[in-house]
Amino acid sequence: MSFLKKLDSASKNNNSRLCIGLDPDLKKFPKDILDSPDPIFNFNKEIIDNTQDLVCAYKPNIAFYESYGIYGLEALMRTIEYILKTEIPVILDTKRSDVGHTAAAYAKAIFEIYKADATTINPYMGHDSVEPFINYKEKGIFILCLTSNKGFRDFQAAGTGEPLYISVAKHVKEWNHYGNCGVVVGATSVKELKEIKNIVGDMPILIPGVGAQGGDLEGSVKYGGKRAIINASRSIIYSDNPRMEAEKLRDQINKF
Amino acid sequence: MSFLKKLDSASKNNNSRLCIGLDPDLKKFPKDILDSPDPIFNFNKEIIDNTQDLVCAYKPNIAFYESYGIYGLEALMRTIEYILKTEIPVILDTKRSDVGHTAAAYAKAIFEIYKADATTINPYMGHDSVEPFINYKEKGIFILCLTSNKGFRDFQAAGTGEPLYISVAKHVKEWNHYGNCGVVVGATSVKELKEIKNIVGDMPILIPGVGAQGGDLEGSVKYGGKRAIINASRSIIYSDNPRMEAEKLRDQINKF
Repeated sequence: MSFLKKLDSASKNNNSRLCIGLDPDLKKFPKDILDSPDPIFNFNKEIIDNTQDLVCAYKPNIAFYESYGIYGLEALMRTIEYILKTEIPVILDTKRSDVGHTAAAYAKAIFEIYKADATTINPYMGHDSVEPFINYKEKGIFILCLTSNKGFRDFQAAGTGEPLYISVAKHVKEWNHYGNCGVVVGATSVKELKEIKNIVGDMPILIPGVGAQGGDLEGSVKYGGKRAIINASRSIIYSDNPRMEAEKLRDQINKF
Repeated sequence: MSFLKKLDSASKNNNSRLCIGLDPDLKKFPKDILDSPDPIFNFNKEIIDNTQDLVCAYKPNIAFYESYGIYGLEALMRTIEYILKTEIPVILDTKRSDVGHTAAAYAKAIFEIYKADATTINPYMGHDSVEPFINYKEKGIFILCLTSNKGFRDFQAAGTGEPLYISVAKHVKEWNHYGNCGVVVGATSVKELKEIKNIVGDMPILIPGVGAQGGDLEGSVKYGGKRAIINASRSIIYSDNPRMEAEKLRDQINKF
């Protein structure tokens, strides 16, 4: 099934636009999980078992797995394999970019080795760096537009002419000939989210930054539309009761 | 030893500004290496054994290793470990970028797990996405400025105001408080290389695109300056005689 169908179906079945970021940090793990033979997988499994009826997607960020070396990446594979047994799509957050034939190697890794349903891509290098990902027509390609960190002001929203994030949104609209593109817009910039939404139409919009980063949930939901994917990571997975936090956030989203 | 000292020393000892890109593609491997138990490492080892007196750096691009799964990444680790026994620095081409705490996880992976001397970084997300890399003061941080692919026209050199690549070069100049930054500029844009060089001064400039991508070698050497690092990958490693091709290119660089 294509990523988009999987997303729409999970969103409908679970009445949810909530995505949970699976970003393992061993320093924050409970002692019993830390002492288990496969702590990263076991930590993720517990989150997945407790929240798969509450979310529209899971988003592991590969950086955290890479930082634990080969074990981390093996645990990532086991995690994705486990999620693929549910009906929830996996967005593997990688923010990759490179020239065409190298981007093709990244796309192969993400979709054929790690078997993700979707990924995130950095647009700095332009169309031929994004195309090898888009060519996986059944997969979802989220292109960074306006990110949730402070540094977005350096380039994405700088200058006196048309801001870079607007130019990126317009290009993504153009690149979307297979209908598998989306954009990433931080919950920290909801005025700009509204502008971007007007350009990209009904593409899915991945919106990080509502949890630990303190973004605007109401504005994100209001302007992100039906295919807003509201991501929270640390504020859920490291809480005392991840299921309760996930349910609370899902219901909050649905109220706006 | 810091990356910059290692680079300057290798460059001086080998009288070379040539960097060889180690980008494995099993489909192009000779049959005897392909049939060996550790083909990627054996292929790289042969290149390294035959060229370590001719180069100033090696640049494996992690994308190719990722596309071969866990085995590929293990072979990358063995390759870097092997290069670290020589006096040649390793630039691990990753083009990573993410928000601060996630960028820190990438930096840990690149410098502590893979043990590279330097890496390449995508600037789209701005200062706080680059800072965790720069904080490894002994490591080299090459920030993408103007890339060698066609897509550079979409954003890097688009618009009517100050082009993005100029803004990036100015920011890198500002971020370089530890003296460990560099930039990436494609050999396909030598007029712009001259402009960028005027901004960044004596920072090292990593210049891909002279081999298979058909960039301008003379202009790259002339405007790149003493710390130009001229990278070629496919045109050397898949030639019939990598040592001869490497020597030829090194000598050509030194003639300009």
